[in-house]
Amino acid sequence: MRATLIYGAGDIRVEQVPDPKLHEPTDAVVRVLRYCICGSDLWPYGSHPASEHGDRIGHEFLGVVEETGSEVAGLTAGDVVVAPFVWADNTCDFCAEGLQTSCRHGGMWGADGVDGGQGEAVRVPQAGGTLVKLPVAVDSALLPSLLTLSDVFPTGHHCALTAGVGPRTSVTVIGDGAVGLSAVLAAKRLGAERIILMGRHTDRTELGRDFGATDVVAERGQEGVERVRELTGGDGTHTVLECVGLAPAVETALGVVRDGGVVSRVGAPQYQQLPMDFGTFFRNITLTGGVAPARAYIDELLPDVLEGRIEPGRVFDRTLSLDQVARGYQAMADRDALKVLVTP
Amino acid sequence: MRATLIYGAGDIRVEQVPDPKLHEPTDAVVRVLRYCICGSDLWPYGSHPASEHGDRIGHEFLGVVEETGSEVAGLTAGDVVVAPFVWADNTCDFCAEGLQTSCRHGGMWGADGVDGGQGEAVRVPQAGGTLVKLPVAVDSALLPSLLTLSDVFPTGHHCALTAGVGPRTSVTVIGDGAVGLSAVLAAKRLGAERIILMGRHTDRTELGRDFGATDVVAERGQEGVERVRELTGGDGTHTVLECVGLAPAVETALGVVRDGGVVSRVGAPQYQQLPMDFGTFFRNITLTGGVAPARAYIDELLPDVLEGRIEPGRVFDRTLSLDQVARGYQAMADRDALKVLVTP
Repeated sequence: MRATLIYGAGDIRVEQVPDPKLHEPTDAVVRVLRYCICGSDLWPYGSHPASEHGDRIGHEFLGVVEETGSEVAGLTAGDVVVAPFVWADNTCDFCAEGLQTSCRHGGMWGADGVDGGQGEAVRVPQAGGTLVKLPVAVDSALLPSLLTLSDVFPTGHHCALTAGVGPRTSVTVIGDGAVGLSAVLAAKRLGAERIILMGRHTDRTELGRDFGATDVVAERGQEGVERVRELTGGDGTHTVLECVGLAPAVETALGVVRDGGVVSRVGAPQYQQLPMDFGTFFRNITLTGGVAPARAYIDELLPDVLEGRIEPGRVFDRTLSLDQVARGYQAMADRDALKVLVTP
Repeated sequence: MRATLIYGAGDIRVEQVPDPKLHEPTDAVVRVLRYCICGSDLWPYGSHPASEHGDRIGHEFLGVVEETGSEVAGLTAGDVVVAPFVWADNTCDFCAEGLQTSCRHGGMWGADGVDGGQGEAVRVPQAGGTLVKLPVAVDSALLPSLLTLSDVFPTGHHCALTAGVGPRTSVTVIGDGAVGLSAVLAAKRLGAERIILMGRHTDRTELGRDFGATDVVAERGQEGVERVRELTGGDGTHTVLECVGLAPAVETALGVVRDGGVVSRVGAPQYQQLPMDFGTFFRNITLTGGVAPARAYIDELLPDVLEGRIEPGRVFDRTLSLDQVARGYQAMADRDALKVLVTP
């Protein structure tokens, strides 16, 4: 089969790789219907060390079950399924607590001999725990929105949920990438009435307004902080959803959060340290969030997608074939595409 | 009257100062019955810049109301009262949310023309909101425990509460100072069954055991982290109460917290940055806590003190007179005294 490999910074290739086979009785093989490129794939795209053999990449996909191991319950060949971006047994104590990203028997796609998600098929470890069955046909118009359940929309949801967003909570979302826009949608879904989106790409912030943003702040840094404070009577917002992953974004978050408020971060940290100093201490600021246990949220979010109440798949603004995936990476790196959907 | 002044690092003096008088109709004057020295007073004791005139110091006191302004409701001369370590109107929106440390009309003792708490009397701004009446006589044996309601015990409570301590929550407390021991007592009071106290002063950790600690870890740094992990099957504890304020203590906290867990910090930060890096992100660690809004908690904690269910005043291991207060600072700085009570 063909799969996407990364050979180094900026070097994405599609090549023949061995067809996936069951290794363990808990495995399944899934033929991929749709996958996509994640903002976090852009970090290796920018910095991956040169590799002679190429490394598998990708962690957001949905597809059709082709084969299941003898210990995989609840799944049959032909089922349409979505995979969360961390695989997990969904039975250990961490999974039971809804923290499947810390599963005692789980792991990452594209690492330790596990397939990446950007290919024609994937061997799925702990398939019974990992995969979620979707009651749709292989040609459903809902596939893009259902694909977002693998990562980007649950990540926005995790951000809003851990921040404590609700009907009486004002919100600032930092970042107008696909995660930031998903966080807007998630905050709106959780009942937030005031959602300030910080971003400066007009086409993206317009989608943010469609998703529920009530205000858009294009300014950045101290100017952006002052603008959000102006909009909130000087106080800042109860919650801040940090969807970038760079230190200046977190610093902005700390600048716009109201005393006693919460900054939740879901942007994969490209920093080592944060200024959680006396000022944040005296203002009782909480820093929460982290990598989203997407598996924990899919059951809850699925009905809203199936019944059309939300359309998180609108973050996809380009669809490419597997052969074109390198162009997709470049388009996202250039901020030319928001999020790229791929049909293998 | 006489009051404690700080003239520079290590230079504490007791001097005559003007008697406090009402300035505003919302003021009261309180004659101090007991005050104490806070661990946080040791930071200026170690580093206060030399001052020609001396600066007032202290923020933990209880006393008797001598006089009230015309707008002070609910208090009369003769009432025994305790003052939280930040004064506040207790009516603004932040106060209504229980965040009196961010009161819109509040402030700190010993700053901006407001008296320090370590003297024979104090002018109390926003007295109706700040002071809490205590149903005891001026010679009550409960005064030491009631005095802890001004700061150290609510600070431990804030730490445990914001961390989410409860019956099913394992706890590590970092620091065997008066705040750490108060955090142990607060965690026990909130129902924690497993409380690991990290500290190496045996007399203090023994009091910690009396307060509810089930385990004591004397090791520090990486060795301490490994010891706590050994005690918890490798996982660490759900919550970690950081009661020191130095970066290595927070690093230890991040090392012993379980995935998905919470580090709450109440040690006044003597650092600018914290290593909230990808590791803490991937493990979904929350950092919370901050300066304790003691006023928010006094009503809840008071009955347990009055009815003898808890005895937080056991953190006082030395009582001095006002004239001896400089010795008290030195004894605490030398770790010779745990916490010093002063009778003016």
